[in-house]
Amino acid sequence: MLSSFKRFLIGRPLKSTELGEQKLNILKALAILSSDALSSVAYGTEQILIVLATISVVAFWYSIPIAVGVLFLLAALILSYRQIIYSYPHGGGAYVVSKENIGEKAGLIAGGSLLVDYILTVAVSVTAGTDAITSAFPALHAHSVFIAVVLVIFITILNLRGITESASILAYPVYLFVIALFILIGVGLFKIVTGDISPSAQHASIGAPVQGITLFLLLRAFASGCSALTGVEAISNAIPTFKDPAPKNAARTLILMGSLLALLFSGITFLAYYYGIAPKADETVVSQIAEETFGRNYLYFFVQGTTALILVLAANTGYSAFPLLAFALAKDKYMPRMFTIRGDRLGYSNGIVSLGVASIILIIASKGQTEHLIPLYAVGVFIPFTLSQTGMIIKWLREKPAGWVAKLTANLVGALITLTVLIIFFVTKLGQVWFVIIFLPLIVLMFKRINSHYESVGEQLRIHPDDEAMPVQGNVIIVPVAGITKVVENSINYAKSLTDQIFAVYVSFDREDEKRFEEKWEKWQPDVRLVTLHSHYRSILHPLSKFIDTVEHKASDNNYRVTVLIPQFITKKSWHNILHNQSSLLIRAYLIFKKKVIVATLPYRFKK
Amino acid sequence: MLSSFKRFLIGRPLKSTELGEQKLNILKALAILSSDALSSVAYGTEQILIVLATISVVAFWYSIPIAVGVLFLLAALILSYRQIIYSYPHGGGAYVVSKENIGEKAGLIAGGSLLVDYILTVAVSVTAGTDAITSAFPALHAHSVFIAVVLVIFITILNLRGITESASILAYPVYLFVIALFILIGVGLFKIVTGDISPSAQHASIGAPVQGITLFLLLRAFASGCSALTGVEAISNAIPTFKDPAPKNAARTLILMGSLLALLFSGITFLAYYYGIAPKADETVVSQIAEETFGRNYLYFFVQGTTALILVLAANTGYSAFPLLAFALAKDKYMPRMFTIRGDRLGYSNGIVSLGVASIILIIASKGQTEHLIPLYAVGVFIPFTLSQTGMIIKWLREKPAGWVAKLTANLVGALITLTVLIIFFVTKLGQVWFVIIFLPLIVLMFKRINSHYESVGEQLRIHPDDEAMPVQGNVIIVPVAGITKVVENSINYAKSLTDQIFAVYVSFDREDEKRFEEKWEKWQPDVRLVTLHSHYRSILHPLSKFIDTVEHKASDNNYRVTVLIPQFITKKSWHNILHNQSSLLIRAYLIFKKKVIVATLPYRFKK
Repeated sequence: MLSSFKRFLIGRPLKSTELGEQKLNILKALAILSSDALSSVAYGTEQILIVLATISVVAFWYSIPIAVGVLFLLAALILSYRQIIYSYPHGGGAYVVSKENIGEKAGLIAGGSLLVDYILTVAVSVTAGTDAITSAFPALHAHSVFIAVVLVIFITILNLRGITESASILAYPVYLFVIALFILIGVGLFKIVTGDISPSAQHASIGAPVQGITLFLLLRAFASGCSALTGVEAISNAIPTFKDPAPKNAARTLILMGSLLALLFSGITFLAYYYGIAPKADETVVSQIAEETFGRNYLYFFVQGTTALILVLAANTGYSAFPLLAFALAKDKYMPRMFTIRGDRLGYSNGIVSLGVASIILIIASKGQTEHLIPLYAVGVFIPFTLSQTGMIIKWLREKPAGWVAKLTANLVGALITLTVLIIFFVTKLGQVWFVIIFLPLIVLMFKRINSHYESVGEQLRIHPDDEAMPVQGNVIIVPVAGITKVVENSINYAKSLTDQIFAVYVSFDREDEKRFEEKWEKWQPDVRLVTLHSHYRSILHPLSKFIDTVEHKASDNNYRVTVLIPQFITKKSWHNILHNQSSLLIRAYLIFKKKVIVATLPYRFKK
Repeated sequence: MLSSFKRFLIGRPLKSTELGEQKLNILKALAILSSDALSSVAYGTEQILIVLATISVVAFWYSIPIAVGVLFLLAALILSYRQIIYSYPHGGGAYVVSKENIGEKAGLIAGGSLLVDYILTVAVSVTAGTDAITSAFPALHAHSVFIAVVLVIFITILNLRGITESASILAYPVYLFVIALFILIGVGLFKIVTGDISPSAQHASIGAPVQGITLFLLLRAFASGCSALTGVEAISNAIPTFKDPAPKNAARTLILMGSLLALLFSGITFLAYYYGIAPKADETVVSQIAEETFGRNYLYFFVQGTTALILVLAANTGYSAFPLLAFALAKDKYMPRMFTIRGDRLGYSNGIVSLGVASIILIIASKGQTEHLIPLYAVGVFIPFTLSQTGMIIKWLREKPAGWVAKLTANLVGALITLTVLIIFFVTKLGQVWFVIIFLPLIVLMFKRINSHYESVGEQLRIHPDDEAMPVQGNVIIVPVAGITKVVENSINYAKSLTDQIFAVYVSFDREDEKRFEEKWEKWQPDVRLVTLHSHYRSILHPLSKFIDTVEHKASDNNYRVTVLIPQFITKKSWHNILHNQSSLLIRAYLIFKKKVIVATLPYRFKK
């Protein structure tokens, strides 16, 4: 029943050979992998204005040069990542690039911060989307944590169904959002050109002197604006999910996404500046622009609706990238092996489910108040940005392929800018991001310890040709018996067919019972040795365990193996299970984990 | 660590031979087994007055004849139960008496209602005690459910430590309560005799005409007063916990308890009548009497404090009686066998823990509002009262021992009165007790189904001398292998020592890998057959299960046994467990429960 419910939720299992059919073309990939990056447009401009608003409305003109800076950074990132895609066509992104060129630790830092970042992406995006929904329907506000959790579960199930199918569902909102913003920007510009909208009074001209402006503040505003760039790295991690030729398709998707992001971000920032919009607590900048442009008509709700939708779906980027990165780390033995297994629908189910569970925990723990997680999340992105660019620089210096100077320059510029942004983050927002400094070393340590365990296990399991194992000389079988029943008869017959060294062991709580049983046994199985153990403390396990130790000790001297036979009742109805002291389960677990004996379980099926 | 925590809570395990030392003398038994009955004094009189108050204060004089009726009933019950103790010295009380003399169903009804009743006793008494505490310290009122749960856990732990030790702790409050009430009654009577207190204005003389009084109302008041008798049966169920001669000691304890109960109940009822006390919502009758007698001095708080304490400890009666009754039912195969096992400290731990858990659930489910459970609880007592008296009547009629007429008369009077009370309950309080009519048949049905399962299992396990089992002809061993490692080497060596019919089974996900493995195997173990199975859906279990079916089918035709060897990694540190796909656990459980094969588990211990 459980399994048919699973079928209903995630669909029939897929054959391994169906893997190719699940791969992505450019349009679907754009939808899946860019919702995170594109959705940043919904808050990037606003983040800049919020910082500038601390000075005065006159300072708002600075949003234009800051946006130019962000666009410049975006271009550098896109160029650098394009080179990474071609150099590392099997994906892995920042983790692989840093590990191969800088070293293990750099790779693990990049991988660790990205993993955590994807969890943050899911939590932050879904809560932001939920806020948009509850703002529209205030009655739902009390249930926002519940709604967010349901949304995460919904996205998790979509992803468990498999990537192409989720792409089909997720493509619409992304493209609708892009169309909605293009309409908004187009109509806005048209109205400005036709003079339908005159510049607002708050609209200071570019270059106007601003009192109290400091470099620190401008840098802070720039760092805030960089939150619009989160999600740019997703494509480089996910190359293996593209249709062949994967690297070429991935690079094209990257350029397409970069261009869309640049256009939308510039458009929104320009309109915000021209309209003289100031950030408000209860209305987003995009909403204000849309209202100014359309009034509160259906086009306004179209923009707002698709924005809310894409924020929720931005979470999906995390679902595409997290399992692949976890796979890469697990294949290199830095994470548990279970992350390498494809599920019924060919996605890495364990990665998908882990991500879902982790973000649900984060949402519940923060009671849906994830806004203060945003800076943390931006830092988590810029660390791997910087590391991967640095890795590429080292690679070019080492390999010096044709045209390496141009390539080096692109990555050098990228590395310098992302490092600068990272420094700005730590300098201007230390109070919000100090957590990273403690947490990242811990995660790297965890990776290392997992790795050293797997290495040591591999060494222990390896067969060295020169130390051949001695063949087993013989077998002793111990059969704990509780009475003279068919189950015992079964066990004894089985034991007899394997060896003639059998001990039937009976644990008694009182002496009379002991004698009576010995006599009965003598009549029933005169050729099987019966050992009776007296238990003072009414425990079966302790005397049995002592006896096994004695036998085991003697047996191992002669290279004999000791096997303990334990019956297992299989009841016809599951409620019958509580009627049988499942002491056999306990004894079995105890013997397997604490003793050196082999435990053989004989099922005995009740007929009713 | 868990086990040393258990030691700290409940003490070192006791040897079975220490059982005698745990048995009770009269004074300790009185404390353990009578707190339920004696604590009823705290609310018995009040229950009568609450009903009478619905007419007028003039009606209060009826409390005197009603109390006489209750005392008469008490005397009849004590006499009847004294006879039960001597006739059934091994305990079991109402359950055994009804079962042996009336029939199985009567016994199960008595047993079932008593079991439920003990749970109600614990829940009701502890919440009443908690109310007394929170009335004294109103700040705690918001946490009353929490406090009640903590108290139940505390009493449960005391009982797990063993009966004598809990008795030492519990003896003081019971005796302090008795002393407190004797002082109260003594001082009260002394002041009345010396004229220190004059009869109140509300004090109508006995026989004064009362307007609007009906028989129905008087019966209702009488039934309410009978709640003072709950707990009287406890001693007859617990005879085996007494020191030898157990029946004689139990009978003496019973008489002692009956006398104390009679004295306290008459005293309180008389003082209430003489002082003209009316029941109040926010102050108990006992509290009013104490205030009238002493004023609010330390003696008043002594009475109130010991009352609160005994109410909480009345729960302990349930803990003495429930496990013994559950033991009796389990020995007769009406309840799961686990209730027959003595724990480390010689108490029936499973019964004690079940009672604790059930009453905690009841307390939480009713949010600590258990007052409306009181009538249910009284009915639950009077059903077994009636059944056991009836059983005794049948016994005397059947056996006719010396002096049987007198004995019969005692039980006949008891049976008639308790039956009458029961009928009064159902007639006057149907709205509160209808639940019993639905619930009891269900519980009896459950007993019967458990019984029939055990009977059928016993039949299935019995060895009939004429159908001797065919000896096992030989063994086939299946070894699932995942690679060429020391673990596999271990398994193969073990299998070789048992039989030469070995199948190594390898499940591959792709064809190339399959071929490579076959070649490697051929070189390594040329004399062990390797079967490779191809899995389209990346599942190991399904192809393996199919293969086992094929082998099993052929083997069973020749009376061969099939054994599957599964390795189990034992990691050095417990966190390492998540690093190894515990798929072997899953496979093992699947094979044991779904297949007819024997599953042998070979532990493989990692050295680091």
